[in-house]
Amino acid sequence: MDRKQLIEAVKSQMPGKRWEHTLGVMEAAVLLARKYGCDPDKAYTAAILHDVVKYWPVKDQGDIIRNNGLPADLLDYDKEIWHAPAGAFVAQRDYGMDDEEVLDAIRYHTTGRERMTLMDKVVCLADYIEPGRDFPGVHNIREIAEHSIERALLTAFDGTILFLLEKGKKVYPLTILARNGLIDELKQQEQAGNQANDL
Amino acid sequence: MDRKQLIEAVKSQMPGKRWEHTLGVMEAAVLLARKYGCDPDKAYTAAILHDVVKYWPVKDQGDIIRNNGLPADLLDYDKEIWHAPAGAFVAQRDYGMDDEEVLDAIRYHTTGRERMTLMDKVVCLADYIEPGRDFPGVHNIREIAEHSIERALLTAFDGTILFLLEKGKKVYPLTILARNGLIDELKQQEQAGNQANDL
Repeated sequence: MDRKQLIEAVKSQMPGKRWEHTLGVMEAAVLLARKYGCDPDKAYTAAILHDVVKYWPVKDQGDIIRNNGLPADLLDYDKEIWHAPAGAFVAQRDYGMDDEEVLDAIRYHTTGRERMTLMDKVVCLADYIEPGRDFPGVHNIREIAEHSIERALLTAFDGTILFLLEKGKKVYPLTILARNGLIDELKQQEQAGNQANDL
Repeated sequence: MDRKQLIEAVKSQMPGKRWEHTLGVMEAAVLLARKYGCDPDKAYTAAILHDVVKYWPVKDQGDIIRNNGLPADLLDYDKEIWHAPAGAFVAQRDYGMDDEEVLDAIRYHTTGRERMTLMDKVVCLADYIEPGRDFPGVHNIREIAEHSIERALLTAFDGTILFLLEKGKKVYPLTILARNGLIDELKQQEQAGNQANDL
């Protein structure tokens, strides 16, 4: 399946309005990949596929998790997070995607994970800040993304966790581990910066 | 060591002002235990011991964790959470406490844990709402505690997590698992209530 065929196939899985979001993520992911130094082509591919099952019936998303040995604890959390791991599975099974870097970026684009790769961060952040997004605070995250992908993603996760606290909803533990990992990375960057200044 | 000796021994481990907090937790824990139906005597004992190492030098608290096989990931988080698991270890080693229900309540009184026992909840909540506490929101938590220990504790954890978000600090994952568990329990209680109403 070439790039054009992949786009047409994924596009057919969702309503037109939702495809516009995917186009936005494709654009943002390529810009972030170029800026921060991971493969823009892989980021583009992950972005095409990131929501491939999001508009499937929820039951079908759950069945993908249940029937294929994906982490069963996902089913104890909001269905909004199911499409990411289910999407990675479908990207491999139905679209022949076998690049682990791309599959991980799809798999963790909603929850994050403990030690996020740069590709994970690019696709996850692109999903938050693509040009079509218009939630309170998105301008701030876009501005921060000009300087630090870790700080931008931390700010985005903070917003998500705050939203879940306010709604009385459970927080998927990987998101906390992702946030904790970003805080550690930022601290290490700061320490490295201070050491460089001391030289 | 009888009760009086235990109190004197633990009291000697901390400044006088801090002992007043322990007295408050002892009072609140007994009231909560009576109200919600766990052993008030055990709750009282756990409360006496809950902060036994809190005013030890931080290095000594860390050494207890490092040298005795306690969860090493604690050391990657704020030292404020170290005294609880270190305290449970010292309660057993130095004070002969061997009741697992009491030890667990000491061990998890700061972070909580995935499936909190009623005793865990009583000591953890008593620590938040003892009469000497005066943080924003404490009156609200005290009011909620009149009706639901789970909802009061959920509100308390939400406040702690919010504080950590605002400070850019890491959240210990057990606290998220504790909060998620409370949300599940409250949902089950609500469903059981609805079923009872349907009869």
